[in-house]
Amino acid sequence: MDNIKLVSRATKERTIIEVGELKIGQKFILIAGPCSIESEEQMLKTAYAVKQAGANILRGGAFKPRTSPYAFQGLGLKGLKILEKIGKETGLPVVTEVLDTRDVSWVCEYVDILQIGARNMQNFSLLKEVGKTNKPVLLKRGMYSTLAEWLNCAEYILNEGNPNVILCERGIRTFETYTRNTLDLSAVPAIKELSHLPIIVDPTHSTGKVSLIPPMSLAAVVAGADGLIIEVHHNPAEALSDKDQALRPEEFAVLAQQVMNLKKYMEDLA
Amino acid sequence: MDNIKLVSRATKERTIIEVGELKIGQKFILIAGPCSIESEEQMLKTAYAVKQAGANILRGGAFKPRTSPYAFQGLGLKGLKILEKIGKETGLPVVTEVLDTRDVSWVCEYVDILQIGARNMQNFSLLKEVGKTNKPVLLKRGMYSTLAEWLNCAEYILNEGNPNVILCERGIRTFETYTRNTLDLSAVPAIKELSHLPIIVDPTHSTGKVSLIPPMSLAAVVAGADGLIIEVHHNPAEALSDKDQALRPEEFAVLAQQVMNLKKYMEDLA
Amino acid sequence: MDNIKLVSRATKERTIIEVGELKIGQKFILIAGPCSIESEEQMLKTAYAVKQAGANILRGGAFKPRTSPYAFQGLGLKGLKILEKIGKETGLPVVTEVLDTRDVSWVCEYVDILQIGARNMQNFSLLKEVGKTNKPVLLKRGMYSTLAEWLNCAEYILNEGNPNVILCERGIRTFETYTRNTLDLSAVPAIKELSHLPIIVDPTHSTGKVSLIPPMSLAAVVAGADGLIIEVHHNPAEALSDKDQALRPEEFAVLAQQVMNLKKYMEDLA
Amino acid sequence: MDNIKLVSRATKERTIIEVGELKIGQKFILIAGPCSIESEEQMLKTAYAVKQAGANILRGGAFKPRTSPYAFQGLGLKGLKILEKIGKETGLPVVTEVLDTRDVSWVCEYVDILQIGARNMQNFSLLKEVGKTNKPVLLKRGMYSTLAEWLNCAEYILNEGNPNVILCERGIRTFETYTRNTLDLSAVPAIKELSHLPIIVDPTHSTGKVSLIPPMSLAAVVAGADGLIIEVHHNPAEALSDKDQALRPEEFAVLAQQVMNLKKYMEDLA
Repeated sequence: MDNIKLVSRATKERTIIEVGELKIGQKFILIAGPCSIESEEQMLKTAYAVKQAGANILRGGAFKPRTSPYAFQGLGLKGLKILEKIGKETGLPVVTEVLDTRDVSWVCEYVDILQIGARNMQNFSLLKEVGKTNKPVLLKRGMYSTLAEWLNCAEYILNEGNPNVILCERGIRTFETYTRNTLDLSAVPAIKELSHLPIIVDPTHSTGKVSLIPPMSLAAVVAGADGLIIEVHHNPAEALSDKDQALRPEEFAVLAQQVMNLKKYMEDLA
Repeated sequence: MDNIKLVSRATKERTIIEVGELKIGQKFILIAGPCSIESEEQMLKTAYAVKQAGANILRGGAFKPRTSPYAFQGLGLKGLKILEKIGKETGLPVVTEVLDTRDVSWVCEYVDILQIGARNMQNFSLLKEVGKTNKPVLLKRGMYSTLAEWLNCAEYILNEGNPNVILCERGIRTFETYTRNTLDLSAVPAIKELSHLPIIVDPTHSTGKVSLIPPMSLAAVVAGADGLIIEVHHNPAEALSDKDQALRPEEFAVLAQQVMNLKKYMEDLA
Repeated sequence: MDNIKLVSRATKERTIIEVGELKIGQKFILIAGPCSIESEEQMLKTAYAVKQAGANILRGGAFKPRTSPYAFQGLGLKGLKILEKIGKETGLPVVTEVLDTRDVSWVCEYVDILQIGARNMQNFSLLKEVGKTNKPVLLKRGMYSTLAEWLNCAEYILNEGNPNVILCERGIRTFETYTRNTLDLSAVPAIKELSHLPIIVDPTHSTGKVSLIPPMSLAAVVAGADGLIIEVHHNPAEALSDKDQALRPEEFAVLAQQVMNLKKYMEDLA
Repeated sequence: MDNIKLVSRATKERTIIEVGELKIGQKFILIAGPCSIESEEQMLKTAYAVKQAGANILRGGAFKPRTSPYAFQGLGLKGLKILEKIGKETGLPVVTEVLDTRDVSWVCEYVDILQIGARNMQNFSLLKEVGKTNKPVLLKRGMYSTLAEWLNCAEYILNEGNPNVILCERGIRTFETYTRNTLDLSAVPAIKELSHLPIIVDPTHSTGKVSLIPPMSLAAVVAGADGLIIEVHHNPAEALSDKDQALRPEEFAVLAQQVMNLKKYMEDLA
């Protein structure tokens, strides 16, 4: 891992990122919410439910990077306004994906954390642009990316002056078809030995199967992840995207409790 | 998963395999030992150490499937005799890999469990041959194999009359080079929903890195694995094979304790 | 391939794209030039050499998507001005990669064809932006993209009103390490049966080895490619990027002659 | 490629393997025939047809390595007797796959060339066993094998005393699903620079699509392959295995003519 400098563990023990009262990298975080922002009602229902269950950040997509141009592309600005409003009402910081360099500055007005999705991991213009903001960046691993490439993308952001990058393992593409992608959980301890940046796990997009989200969430806790990001929809059957992999709020509540208990057990051990 | 019949979860809730007093599939197992059987002294030292640490099955290779014909190929019969002797002295059941249909019947005289390695997962003649014995079979996933292909290989064994197959996830081959292979931990809960067979995890060959073995072992426990198989050598620097990924006995002892504690925590939850 | 509409072979037999006097999709094209535009002298030398050898389009990168932020990032506008000037002097149309939605409109002032690189294949904002121009787009396949995903990216461009997309197979990422990527040459006839768009092959980035470029170039001709894009540098040892995979002008000249002869042989057959 | 010795190009310019009057490695070969030997009538019809079309070796499987134990497993000895008989009647040398070390010696009585299939590429016992015979061995590349691993498998055979190994590229497993596997045609010139062994290409199993077999066969010729192995069935719709990828005899005849013409063109060039 010769090329990395600013993100290297050699330079620092640990990065702690403050978002409101949260200290990401120090205390475990639970990010939850729907794939896409669909309506104020949807966001409100989901946000209250996940907050009550223990989530401390709200997610929701306003710009959706969809394989087909004919699939739902997100509500855009209208969605951001909903996200901001619901975040304020519930007291949850909010995170959304940004797809275009031109959107970065004004999207910052509405959200607390910017997300770079897997398909844009090596969109170096976008990395530089978010590197110029003062917002924490959730940087997903590209589905075809080595750890070295991923860390170099974080390096792009830090090199522009923004030290607050949260890495997110979300599964890599392999030949296996039973799962949507293959969750590379060994990336968590591997990143911990290579870098000081916090790393969270996305069990939703990696497995693509509701039944596999709970065991892989718990496994992520034990592997040393600093948090989880999980898709929750108040009515998955009617979701405009990713309907087959969203947890219902009551499923999320059960999982969140198990996650927090297990995290406490692990901390008591150490 | 249309093709599987005998191994399907639809036919049975759970298979429990008895090896001596062990009930694999019901109670968590820890298999430990060196990559290759090298000498009686080596096996004796390692066996006592891993037993004391909590291992309940001893592993050791007598026939080694090496990439190069010029690499150490194993001690063969001489190794099996050592393995049998040390197993008896320590009271640990023993497992070894078998590579050739001609060896199956006589190898059965020396060991308690037969292993089919990743490279032979689709060696259908060998699968049929071990299917005709009454020994439990540890069937490793091929490094290029889908869950469907793997379960079909188990189906070959059951179809010959041997119901005692233990599946072992040992990492799949991807583009990532930081780890030796990519541990597909989601295979554990996936197999649990598809099949009644027990499944264990090999954190040694999947990660190929001593530092990643402990976190991935613990993650495997939480993901629902029925056991672990871990390479331990009393002096890794002098091992004839896999020297960079073997734990020292004292490292294994610390890990085994963590694993057993975590397993107890998970059982208390349920 | 359910989702594609505008790019589907079902809608049209063949797309022919006019660039100056060239008719891409009807007559075989040879795109050549350096990885990066480095200086006017470099471009002039290379451009005359490749033109004389039979190339009919000049390539050169002004914005370079480099894995590390510390690697040479390209000359930007200065490079574009050089490219435009040399293109005019030699009478060769020019193609360059564009990385940022904000650059698309003004880059169009300098070049004849816009390139979307492999890392930006699913940068949907960028696809939409180039879809709004009247410049032909060279769309490289993502290194981890299925044919279906790739065609959907072309669909994004056509859906914005730009019908002139040239697909480019440039190798996919696999476990093989001898070559830089694995050239999926079967993509050429596969795309021909799925779509009416022209498809060219990049033997440079796919193989990453000078010695493999000639055989794979010839194989691409026979597989039905509509053209080739090959890196040529007047002095590879001093290139600022990709020095190990650039052909020298005299090597390119030999290959270009073989390619044109073979193409003629194939046409005479049909 | 440090480990290889006997198969290395450093030791020898080229291996030429004599089978009857054929000189494999010197003169291009066309191996054709059905996936499975089904009946004497089937073999006779197909054999005469492919011979007339220009094939010079007949293939047919008697032992079939099938994913499921419930799929047709081949006729075994009965099949071998048919293959031998038809080979003699038509004057074509015959090749068949061998799966089990116990079968090697007696299968040698019936065939001219032994095939090691992709799934058994790293079945080292089988490699050693065929290495002890005096029959040429057709060694297919494992679907997840690097060139280095593949050449080491050939090294196993040569190390036992059998110098006559023909390598066969048959596609590797990737994420792409449009084709059955991904034909890695760059392996042909790559192997040519690493080894003196002849290498042929299997366009049938790599593409898995009748429509892609002709272009990839021609591309293989141009890339430098020493031959092709193609599945042909006199009535694909009724084939007991691989019915979707077998050419009909008349399709094969057209392709064989194109292949031989193109091969002649390439030789005239050189």
